[in-house]
Amino acid sequence: MKSSPAVLPTRLLTILVLSLPLNVAAQSIRAYRQANEHKILQELVSLLTIPNVAADRANIQRNADKIMEMLRQRGVETRLLEHVRPEVPPVVFGELKSPGAKETIMFYCHYDGQPTDSSKWTDTKPWEPVLRTNAIEAGGTIIPFPGSSEKISGEWRVYARSSSDDKSPIVVLCTALDAHRANKVPLTANLKFFFEGEEEAGSPHLADILRRYKDLLKADIWITADGPVHQNGQKLVFFGCRGIVSAEITVYGSNRALHSGHYGNWAPNPAMWLSKLIASMKDETGKVLIPGFYDDVEPLRQTENEALAESPDYDRTLMKELGFAQSEGGGKSLNELINLPSLNVSGLSSGYVGSQSRTLVPATATARIDMRLVKGNDPQRQVERLKEHIRKQGYIIVSTDPDRETRVKYPLIAKMTTSDGYKAYRTPMNLPIAQKIVGAVQSVSSEKIVRMPTLGGSGPLSLFAEFNDAPQIGVPIVNYDNNQHSENENVRIQNLWDGIEIYAAIMAMK
Amino acid sequence: MKSSPAVLPTRLLTILVLSLPLNVAAQSIRAYRQANEHKILQELVSLLTIPNVAADRANIQRNADKIMEMLRQRGVETRLLEHVRPEVPPVVFGELKSPGAKETIMFYCHYDGQPTDSSKWTDTKPWEPVLRTNAIEAGGTIIPFPGSSEKISGEWRVYARSSSDDKSPIVVLCTALDAHRANKVPLTANLKFFFEGEEEAGSPHLADILRRYKDLLKADIWITADGPVHQNGQKLVFFGCRGIVSAEITVYGSNRALHSGHYGNWAPNPAMWLSKLIASMKDETGKVLIPGFYDDVEPLRQTENEALAESPDYDRTLMKELGFAQSEGGGKSLNELINLPSLNVSGLSSGYVGSQSRTLVPATATARIDMRLVKGNDPQRQVERLKEHIRKQGYIIVSTDPDRETRVKYPLIAKMTTSDGYKAYRTPMNLPIAQKIVGAVQSVSSEKIVRMPTLGGSGPLSLFAEFNDAPQIGVPIVNYDNNQHSENENVRIQNLWDGIEIYAAIMAMK
Repeated sequence: MKSSPAVLPTRLLTILVLSLPLNVAAQSIRAYRQANEHKILQELVSLLTIPNVAADRANIQRNADKIMEMLRQRGVETRLLEHVRPEVPPVVFGELKSPGAKETIMFYCHYDGQPTDSSKWTDTKPWEPVLRTNAIEAGGTIIPFPGSSEKISGEWRVYARSSSDDKSPIVVLCTALDAHRANKVPLTANLKFFFEGEEEAGSPHLADILRRYKDLLKADIWITADGPVHQNGQKLVFFGCRGIVSAEITVYGSNRALHSGHYGNWAPNPAMWLSKLIASMKDETGKVLIPGFYDDVEPLRQTENEALAESPDYDRTLMKELGFAQSEGGGKSLNELINLPSLNVSGLSSGYVGSQSRTLVPATATARIDMRLVKGNDPQRQVERLKEHIRKQGYIIVSTDPDRETRVKYPLIAKMTTSDGYKAYRTPMNLPIAQKIVGAVQSVSSEKIVRMPTLGGSGPLSLFAEFNDAPQIGVPIVNYDNNQHSENENVRIQNLWDGIEIYAAIMAMK
Repeated sequence: MKSSPAVLPTRLLTILVLSLPLNVAAQSIRAYRQANEHKILQELVSLLTIPNVAADRANIQRNADKIMEMLRQRGVETRLLEHVRPEVPPVVFGELKSPGAKETIMFYCHYDGQPTDSSKWTDTKPWEPVLRTNAIEAGGTIIPFPGSSEKISGEWRVYARSSSDDKSPIVVLCTALDAHRANKVPLTANLKFFFEGEEEAGSPHLADILRRYKDLLKADIWITADGPVHQNGQKLVFFGCRGIVSAEITVYGSNRALHSGHYGNWAPNPAMWLSKLIASMKDETGKVLIPGFYDDVEPLRQTENEALAESPDYDRTLMKELGFAQSEGGGKSLNELINLPSLNVSGLSSGYVGSQSRTLVPATATARIDMRLVKGNDPQRQVERLKEHIRKQGYIIVSTDPDRETRVKYPLIAKMTTSDGYKAYRTPMNLPIAQKIVGAVQSVSSEKIVRMPTLGGSGPLSLFAEFNDAPQIGVPIVNYDNNQHSENENVRIQNLWDGIEIYAAIMAMK
């Protein structure tokens, strides 16, 4: 193949530009981290040992107290933002003023974690952190935490609930403060910290708290330190989140489970009816068949389409890694699909399977559904469409278990409970302050960073935007294959190290 | 309305005939029972306190030892029929010879019970029997077991695992022997007893045991003392059972559960795919859509059709009692439907619902299916049809969890495991010895008894028939609403009392 030495191909040029050595500030941050890896890891492990399911109020308090103490050690003024009802997990709030700074940046994290079934973790327990040499899927084995003279590998992972979602960013933010202090680098913005305690429970009291402490929470931009970097490892800034609303649907057969020989195929089988109902919601390509489901979608702006076009095409690699042969969505890419509303069945339960199975016609069958929302969708309007679809399949919808009279009157009864949910949110990508943050993250990256108009996941960005009147962007740091919300949650060590450089760059950005 | 006093309507005539007082032998049996109710109840409760899941070998042995002792107290020669593998639950065998008797009657029961989830029982535990004033559904409340001077109501119920299925018949048979002995009534047939210890586990070793002890098990007729009387309370003789074969199907998404926001509606959702697969198996009326599913059905004989036509039409009453508005089966009656093969979904499981729910795309989804078989059906032929149907929906079928290579090659993968199953069986209704037994049961009934060509449930009658070369009929005694196989299993006391008269009449039939 011929090539002209006079003209560098664009891609090579990009590599050259991006491969420039780190600036001096970034170098000092890295040096600090390299000298303090054991201490950083210790602080993370210590935080991860405290159970943090939002409903476990006593342990939630222990987490909040610990995090307050961590911030105070960094000179951050802290307080708890409490709901009027004391059983609600408090927000840990912190503030660090920088002399002469004009802008205020708010960092958002949450310190609660998803509930989890301990018995499903591989050889470890959710709140007893362990170190592995790699991901379990890549053959990683458990090793002891290293002594202070041993080298720590960036490929090692810490396994524990909330190791990625979302306690690591809290520790990483604290470490970024340490590094700047050690290097005597002045921060260029006032910082605030808002660490929520019930995000994984759906943030049911967040609006109340945002309203109550509105004045305290003023900032020029909110940065969500939650979610994973790109699947290919590239650093990522996102400008929005999808919204979400959930529904649980129970359908009814007889008023008790019945012997399947004596009554099967005469008594109605709710497992079969639920299957038909769920099956009616999507076609074979995964397209949602609920009338109007895609109607309200607000089209992407030009800048957003451009960012999407630039983002890496990683789907084939990811499919292989996740172990499946064909994606849903009729050939659309993952990037396209997360800019559409979704309907996901997250649970089915009826009767018994496996060693517990018995020959019964189950009495009920239950499905759990979550619907992700994009800009334009309203949670309750989407719920109404789902309800209307269920009614069209012949059901009457009730909100509590039906009584005998209702049961003998209607052939098909669905009990449906739904969450309030919240809307999607997107910050325009060309806002000056957003551009500054993109620049800061880019400054510590050797490759071009990925800019995503929205994450696939949900976060209460729309609530923040509504109450705080400030733009919201997301700067995640953890590895994508962290098993968040599932058993065997983990964080890759190198992502912590990179994260320190990212957040430090933002704190000192020009 | 005019009526001619000279001609009695047939129905009235029937009532007159059937309302004749009990014969002398039956009267003496009733008197014995009335004088010994507390003792009978005590013996039942004592047997019900021993846990009896087939896999619990230690407790199975305690049951077998106890039942051996119960038989020996009645002068029955007993022994255990053991499998070559000692972990297999033994059969309790008994024999009682009657001088001069020409015929030998074998009574079949099983002393093991279905596994059960203790936490789902209402205020009681499966192996801690309690007495209630009525069925829970009818407002029955727990009362202490009565002192020996207190009267026992026939409407009271004993709640415990296997109270109906199938320990009560064992106690009732023993009591019938007691009553004859107390009244010095000679038995007219030699009796044998075959009490199985793993019927609820699918009788996996029954054929081996029948083969091994073939000579010992010779009899002129086998009477299955299992199953319930008619739903309207009428006494019942059945001439067959359906066969059964079970399948468990697991379908696969990604190799781990994934965040539903980041991956939902792109990564395949096995809960949705399983719903579509299950939904494809039946139409809206409950008709099975698997090609050939109804092909092999052997038509009913004329005597069987006549017996069915005479059996009570109880469907509307039952639907009201069970609390549903519309039966499956396209308008066919329960009696018609149990003479057809069935497909029942007894379990669905994927991800999480309720308080455990989390926003994930599940990694797998599993369904449990049982298929009942009628005469003409072969278990493995029916399984093949199910497999072929699943393949037609686009699946490849595997027998173990697929490896990564298989996962990334095939979009739809179903793991399927199936039981061996067994065939249906029906004894011709006009056999002389069967007629004699029908006559004996009729002799202690004030209404015309119900004769069913087959029960809806399954039992290994086909195995008995194959190995023993003897006709098989069923004479059940327990109430139909006994929650067998489910939580809150119970037996109605009056059914015990009636059962004693039924089995005693058979033991002394002319």
